[in-house]
Amino acid sequence: MSCDGRVVKALDSKSNGIFPRSFHILGVIWNGESIIEGAAEALSLLKHRHGKKVCLVTNNSTKSPLDYLNKCEKLGIHILNEEEIVSSSTVAAYYLKHKLHVRNKVYVIGGPGLGKELDKIGIQHVGIGADHFEDYHSEERIFDVSAVIVGFDPHISYAKILKASSYLKNKDCLFVATNEDSCFPSTNPLLILPGAGSVLASVKVASGREPIVIGKPHRPILTYLKEKLGLDPSKTLMTGDTLATDIAFAKRHGLASMLVLSGNTTLEDVKNARTELSPDYYANSLKTLCELEGEI
Amino acid sequence: MSCDGRVVKALDSKSNGIFPRSFHILGVIWNGESIIEGAAEALSLLKHRHGKKVCLVTNNSTKSPLDYLNKCEKLGIHILNEEEIVSSSTVAAYYLKHKLHVRNKVYVIGGPGLGKELDKIGIQHVGIGADHFEDYHSEERIFDVSAVIVGFDPHISYAKILKASSYLKNKDCLFVATNEDSCFPSTNPLLILPGAGSVLASVKVASGREPIVIGKPHRPILTYLKEKLGLDPSKTLMTGDTLATDIAFAKRHGLASMLVLSGNTTLEDVKNARTELSPDYYANSLKTLCELEGEI
Repeated sequence: MSCDGRVVKALDSKSNGIFPRSFHILGVIWNGESIIEGAAEALSLLKHRHGKKVCLVTNNSTKSPLDYLNKCEKLGIHILNEEEIVSSSTVAAYYLKHKLHVRNKVYVIGGPGLGKELDKIGIQHVGIGADHFEDYHSEERIFDVSAVIVGFDPHISYAKILKASSYLKNKDCLFVATNEDSCFPSTNPLLILPGAGSVLASVKVASGREPIVIGKPHRPILTYLKEKLGLDPSKTLMTGDTLATDIAFAKRHGLASMLVLSGNTTLEDVKNARTELSPDYYANSLKTLCELEGEI
Repeated sequence: MSCDGRVVKALDSKSNGIFPRSFHILGVIWNGESIIEGAAEALSLLKHRHGKKVCLVTNNSTKSPLDYLNKCEKLGIHILNEEEIVSSSTVAAYYLKHKLHVRNKVYVIGGPGLGKELDKIGIQHVGIGADHFEDYHSEERIFDVSAVIVGFDPHISYAKILKASSYLKNKDCLFVATNEDSCFPSTNPLLILPGAGSVLASVKVASGREPIVIGKPHRPILTYLKEKLGLDPSKTLMTGDTLATDIAFAKRHGLASMLVLSGNTTLEDVKNARTELSPDYYANSLKTLCELEGEI
């Protein structure tokens, strides 16, 4: 397909030059509770037959890598280990500790998955769970927090937005977000399931501040992959189904990129997108990777 | 004060040309539960001694004009009648009925003040009050709504954001917001009190849609004042303490403007603001209006 001088190539047996990459990142392997066709086979082929490094990178901060590993096992994927599953919650905890050198408590708008990652790395935190206090006018600043982190939180409430933005009045209080995804994929066509980006927007507007964002397409995940898994962008292929996160991440940081059309993105979307969101390759599904065994 | 070729004049006895305006709008007369110095006197002088038309225009949608009238009485202001108090909730109801011709139910993220105004004008609505359903994955579209209206709601929850943005998937469903104010003024320096703009941001991000905004500085309030109170912009002075709402409203719609410095806005803010936010006049407080009795 060619548009506006850009060429996005279909992945086929003539594809070459891109597949000798030694590190493969998958941005998507399931859709809700179903595995994406070809995901298990592609992972197995890449890792075991060809000896490539592989990892799964997700912006979703609601689960810990161990939770995701259990989900993989349940879906019949027995190929990944815990270190090969990288979520924005793991990277957020790493970033807070090793890059921002947070020592005191962190106020969290987010779920237990994020809490587990903070616990694991030894960062004290408060905020997880329901909070619907009514008498917010009399609420006092209950402690000094050194950072506010916002991820997806189904318990989002006025109390939480008020607390987060009040802590952020202190300019020394850091502001971190797991990701900016506006919605989760929904299997019910009648429903929009708001994501972390929606929760985050309310805190951004109330506080008047901009966060450091951890998730794709931003840099912190790249830094983590380099430092913890030895990723070299020039030797890595990013495969995913979302232009604004997966493909933008690859393009922004010098990784090769391949869009799989098994999600909500179509070739029409690629045509209408800005150049920096155009993948190098596209394929109908991860299965295509397996059909090209000799090439990769 | 002069900056960037703009001149903002202090209100003094040499001020002329602007005060023969026959309609005066006050954008602010109280701060939390305290009346602003000079507000009652200024209102009395303008209305009773000089026979000007006056009204109070507020973006705050949490109370109905009757609630505000009661608040005025409690604060010792016995000068206004119900029609002279115009809130974004009143105008939102008017706009939905007479401009958007809404016939079916409206889904409301907002408080009882907004509900009263919708009831008064005969628009059916649902949504006011707490809603913290947990099993949102199984939630069905419970009825067809013809519009979603978002104002300030201390019961903001994931359920509400999910419902509002899901209704807005239907492109025929109208999207209206009472106002975009990011925060309420707070008397506690440690607290930010998020406003309707913060609640609105989460629905905007999740739905990917932009609302029609009722409150200052947008047009719907002007239309209402023209149609219901006979306002003529060229004969009107807008007085308020907020550049982004009060002064922007005046400048955008051809009203004369005066900033009172009794709120959170300073002359330094005026200097740093864009030209379209520069008032014609400024004064330390509404009391200044009274000291210039002969001029107005």
